[in-house]
Amino acid sequence: MKTAVTCLLALAWLPATANAAGGPPVSKDTQGCLDCHESATPGIVADWRRSLHARVTPGESLKKPELERRVSATSIPAEVSGVAVGCAECHTANATSHPDTFRHEGYDVHPVVSPRDCANCHPLEAREFSDNLMSRAHGNLEGNPLYGALCDEVNGRLAFDGTRLVSSPPSDVTRADSCLHCHGTRVTATGKRTLNTDQGDMEIPVLDGWPNQGVGRVNPDGSLGSCAACHARHQFSIEVTRKPETCSQCHKGPDVPAYRIWQVSKHGNIFGSVGHQWRFDTVPWVAGEDFTAPTCAACHISLVVAKDGTLYGRRTHRMNDRLERRLFGLIYSHPHPVDADTSGIRNRAGLPLPTELTGEPVESAVIGTAEQAGRRATMQRVCEACHSTQWTEGHFARLDESVRTADSLVLAATRIVQAAWEKGLAKGPDRKASPFDEPIERMWVAQWLFYGNSTRMATAMAGADYGVFADGRWSLTRNLRDMMEWLEARTKKR
Amino acid sequence: MKTAVTCLLALAWLPATANAAGGPPVSKDTQGCLDCHESATPGIVADWRRSLHARVTPGESLKKPELERRVSATSIPAEVSGVAVGCAECHTANATSHPDTFRHEGYDVHPVVSPRDCANCHPLEAREFSDNLMSRAHGNLEGNPLYGALCDEVNGRLAFDGTRLVSSPPSDVTRADSCLHCHGTRVTATGKRTLNTDQGDMEIPVLDGWPNQGVGRVNPDGSLGSCAACHARHQFSIEVTRKPETCSQCHKGPDVPAYRIWQVSKHGNIFGSVGHQWRFDTVPWVAGEDFTAPTCAACHISLVVAKDGTLYGRRTHRMNDRLERRLFGLIYSHPHPVDADTSGIRNRAGLPLPTELTGEPVESAVIGTAEQAGRRATMQRVCEACHSTQWTEGHFARLDESVRTADSLVLAATRIVQAAWEKGLAKGPDRKASPFDEPIERMWVAQWLFYGNSTRMATAMAGADYGVFADGRWSLTRNLRDMMEWLEARTKKR
Amino acid sequence: MKTAVTCLLALAWLPATANAAGGPPVSKDTQGCLDCHESATPGIVADWRRSLHARVTPGESLKKPELERRVSATSIPAEVSGVAVGCAECHTANATSHPDTFRHEGYDVHPVVSPRDCANCHPLEAREFSDNLMSRAHGNLEGNPLYGALCDEVNGRLAFDGTRLVSSPPSDVTRADSCLHCHGTRVTATGKRTLNTDQGDMEIPVLDGWPNQGVGRVNPDGSLGSCAACHARHQFSIEVTRKPETCSQCHKGPDVPAYRIWQVSKHGNIFGSVGHQWRFDTVPWVAGEDFTAPTCAACHISLVVAKDGTLYGRRTHRMNDRLERRLFGLIYSHPHPVDADTSGIRNRAGLPLPTELTGEPVESAVIGTAEQAGRRATMQRVCEACHSTQWTEGHFARLDESVRTADSLVLAATRIVQAAWEKGLAKGPDRKASPFDEPIERMWVAQWLFYGNSTRMATAMAGADYGVFADGRWSLTRNLRDMMEWLEARTKKR
Repeated sequence: MKTAVTCLLALAWLPATANAAGGPPVSKDTQGCLDCHESATPGIVADWRRSLHARVTPGESLKKPELERRVSATSIPAEVSGVAVGCAECHTANATSHPDTFRHEGYDVHPVVSPRDCANCHPLEAREFSDNLMSRAHGNLEGNPLYGALCDEVNGRLAFDGTRLVSSPPSDVTRADSCLHCHGTRVTATGKRTLNTDQGDMEIPVLDGWPNQGVGRVNPDGSLGSCAACHARHQFSIEVTRKPETCSQCHKGPDVPAYRIWQVSKHGNIFGSVGHQWRFDTVPWVAGEDFTAPTCAACHISLVVAKDGTLYGRRTHRMNDRLERRLFGLIYSHPHPVDADTSGIRNRAGLPLPTELTGEPVESAVIGTAEQAGRRATMQRVCEACHSTQWTEGHFARLDESVRTADSLVLAATRIVQAAWEKGLAKGPDRKASPFDEPIERMWVAQWLFYGNSTRMATAMAGADYGVFADGRWSLTRNLRDMMEWLEARTKKR
Repeated sequence: MKTAVTCLLALAWLPATANAAGGPPVSKDTQGCLDCHESATPGIVADWRRSLHARVTPGESLKKPELERRVSATSIPAEVSGVAVGCAECHTANATSHPDTFRHEGYDVHPVVSPRDCANCHPLEAREFSDNLMSRAHGNLEGNPLYGALCDEVNGRLAFDGTRLVSSPPSDVTRADSCLHCHGTRVTATGKRTLNTDQGDMEIPVLDGWPNQGVGRVNPDGSLGSCAACHARHQFSIEVTRKPETCSQCHKGPDVPAYRIWQVSKHGNIFGSVGHQWRFDTVPWVAGEDFTAPTCAACHISLVVAKDGTLYGRRTHRMNDRLERRLFGLIYSHPHPVDADTSGIRNRAGLPLPTELTGEPVESAVIGTAEQAGRRATMQRVCEACHSTQWTEGHFARLDESVRTADSLVLAATRIVQAAWEKGLAKGPDRKASPFDEPIERMWVAQWLFYGNSTRMATAMAGADYGVFADGRWSLTRNLRDMMEWLEARTKKR
Repeated sequence: MKTAVTCLLALAWLPATANAAGGPPVSKDTQGCLDCHESATPGIVADWRRSLHARVTPGESLKKPELERRVSATSIPAEVSGVAVGCAECHTANATSHPDTFRHEGYDVHPVVSPRDCANCHPLEAREFSDNLMSRAHGNLEGNPLYGALCDEVNGRLAFDGTRLVSSPPSDVTRADSCLHCHGTRVTATGKRTLNTDQGDMEIPVLDGWPNQGVGRVNPDGSLGSCAACHARHQFSIEVTRKPETCSQCHKGPDVPAYRIWQVSKHGNIFGSVGHQWRFDTVPWVAGEDFTAPTCAACHISLVVAKDGTLYGRRTHRMNDRLERRLFGLIYSHPHPVDADTSGIRNRAGLPLPTELTGEPVESAVIGTAEQAGRRATMQRVCEACHSTQWTEGHFARLDESVRTADSLVLAATRIVQAAWEKGLAKGPDRKASPFDEPIERMWVAQWLFYGNSTRMATAMAGADYGVFADGRWSLTRNLRDMMEWLEARTKKR
């Protein structure tokens, strides 16, 4: 009844000694690193030996047919072209531009590999990523006084002095450990220190804001972002980046529960049930052949084709190429910002927001209707690998309605908190006070940061189970009723 | 120390071209579909090529030994019997009874395949499913004025007019995108429209309530349910339906967290750890051999046997065959309803509920004690494939206690909200007001819809970690204390 | 483009008949068990046939090189040494010390296998486990009047008498079904009863507190703990214990969300993406070779080495060998207790707590600074299999800050609840009332039991996404603001 069949699965797992046993040559410099690190940090060396970097040279990659190619450089320097991409190829690249470079066993080594280093072979990806909101995640948060006030209130200290709460802002260490863990820290080399090791004393750079792999990390060399945020070191496996668990590291919490929502969609259901049978290491990625339901990457990033080569989505590292609207992150949803750097946006009231407090977008800062329509069409093209036009259109009509209704429920909450400010029941921006510290203000923040976001995204990814009771519509309406009760009780009293 | 062994795992994954390369013949009509759809919707065609439908003919299925057979029809029409079950076999079946049928490239095609179509080969499953509460999920919700009031309040719109919240009911689009996503929409063909495509203009039906795969979908042909809710298109893999992620699409949220609870049971632990080694595509399903801990399907649905053929559970598509009591979904737990259509049930107070507001069941509407005992025994028989009688009895004694205590904590909350209504602190049904819109009423709903359900289910599936702090007993008692504080504060004031 | 490769994965899955077909001999007694149980409880027999217990004799195990050995006994009795470890070897071992022993088909069988039985072959593990806080989980909870009061309030019954809530403590059945499910019940043989079975009448022991596999179970033979809590019966697969889903059975809820936090760390991301390629059944466990990111076991328990045999972590069943500080479980974090039995600890105020209510540790009860430093170094050694010293130090600096700030936010909440007690706004221990039953007290408990714990652990395991919005810092500060509003409203009123 049950017969054992030979496993046809294409597995990325290879003995970590593959490279020793017949892979490409490693450079003399990399061999120098390996001589010690094979025993000093054996885990990452074994991890790297399993990577494509260790098994294919950039020169070999360049010869692949265009659709299969993973390097975007048109030419690669001779000294790198014929060897494995090893320790030295990344950690000593562009050494002079790296303030974190230190003299280490005869080499100029920098610990913090940056997108500029990766761009030696992957320049197109680096360029697209620099147009990606994510690459600006540090500055867009830290450079925005309103968001800064929210971070301070959420992550700060509070002491009870017997009468009231006395607040103080979070330390730099706490900042690095909270919002900036995902948004990225500013990493700076502040000096040197001597480390006593098994191999004797070593002088190493002192790095402030380290460790960090946040997507918008500000690197010592001035570049923005960390490719390792998604392309986990040191295997840099494309399987990892195509698996939803990678996105979930930053997109699972109540403020942006994309992963959780997708999990309870039919897409997530199919992946969770039979995704173990799929191929995650093929380029291009063939819909139906390699996978039968999309992960995050399939819809948003990957090069997706049909078996006959028909293009359904071209690869992009500017994550909003297929997105007309920003569904989460701010008070109201709005068309995507034109510029990845959003720190300069101001609305009519002078607030650093891409919408007014009534929800209208700041026209000059966001993409226009033609661009919106184009991006929606780009996404719908991906849907059409499996779905009919009617199916796809029905889905997007629901998204439009969800955006409208969730935004209107946020507007009602905004009006209530504004009424509280006007009546003097809470102290808001009109009195130069934080709009985020009092209980009624926290209720207002929860309305948009958790419930509005969840509801819109639950529709966008068809994870309705999340959109009703789990931080979705139930919470939107319940929280509003609670806010109203709060306001009524205090209004009557006066 | 580590030796590579040949993979003995029986994998369902086959090249999507399997069928082209030696599978059964496809009918002329299906070939007509494939000629275009291979490139028009390549994802679903590749998915289908991997299905048993593409690899085994109904005629071949009929010849299998009874326990291994997946078709329940005793005879199958000659024109279908000898070919793969392809596009045409489902999407042109019973064409005249489908108001969504349209003329498409020379064929009468309907987009909405219904249980009636599936019944051509699977009549027993269709019949059992029609006795399943789930097949009535649309009407049981939409036809119940009390549940309707809850849906309206949860999913509706609220605007703040400067003094109070003004509510309006959710749009049809929002309904389809919230409760009805799982419960099923009513899909109707409302007319035709012309679609401009790469292949020229096409006249297609306009479908209201589409897309939807809810388990209680009302189909254009009048039939109830969608088999694709669990048997995901177009691979229809039995592995998908046996994996818990399928159930989790609708049974994960705080109102019915069955999946989350099972995950933290020992059963979920074992599945999560070594389930990747199990066989999910064998019929019948052999306890211990094919799997070593149950998924949802094993306990509730599947044909489970021992290696020697001993029967532990017969396959059923009436999901409560092994359940004596409905643990979730309503104010109090209660014996399962006699009839899958519950919309006509009325308690002594005239409310459309299977219990009184004190928790007593409406005797005429629910199964009697003999039937309850029989269903419990049916479930215990499944337990006995691995557990001793003493173990099983101890487990069920805990469930009885959990039901009693959780229901009693719901009763206390009900009495508090009733006191609020009586004292005029909130407006309830006695004043023709919604019992679900005010904050104290929302607290009451949370008590049964989230906390009571969670507590009972945590016991039923031995996921105690969920039943204490995650929406379980902690929440039951805390919410009750909060409700009491609310009532006391307002009672004193007057 | 895609080539099928032969599966190189070392799979633990073997036909359940392996043992019949060439494995070691089974003892006559075990064969006696199998003769009936092969059909009486086929699931567990098939599960056992797949275990190492069924495939390797203790004698063979003893001959393995020390690092690969899984038995810690230096000699094993002749009658067990040469046979499979089957039913009889465990369920009839040490029969005379088992009050749950009963005469069954000619054998003296006990249902409750205890650590003392396992110690026949695994004495070192049993000894280490007895020094593990977990082995005392029953008594540490039940023997502590303060924790007892919390359990009573959380799991108890409440009835509304028309004016107020009347509370009564949880029944023994509810206790076994809530906290004690994980902490372990006290299992006692209270008598015998006759069971009517297919094989005729059987006299079996009546077991109170059964079933249970809690980690601190008090066994009928007086021993403490259940090895099956983590080493799930009857496959006893090391893969199960090394998979995080095992830990998640008790460490996922809001009081101790270790699993959820790890999931959104880079470690969890990598495991979730490519962990299916790893080897979980090799001893010792080779960092980089067998796995490329740690599960719970790798950091806390397992024997971890490099390929060249260098030791990174020695195996331990005393779970805090690598932990300097207890981050969760109590009001404030504190250095680990010296003694696994914590029920005798008293602080200066006489409360059964390892800290004062201000957070200072009870010096005599907790480990000193030298021991703390040693345990931190032991853990850091594991980190160094992959990470640089600078990386590791940066991580631990964040943990120190997180501990300080989370504890300070708990202190603020404690001061508020104390103010409420002092002002007579709530009834606390000073009036011999429960400190856990009133709403303001429940808010205080949530501050430490959920939010403080979550924040500290989110830092410890670098799962920042959890530490900000999901029960972390957002909740710490919001809850404090809410407590303050509660206190202010009531202070003004008077």
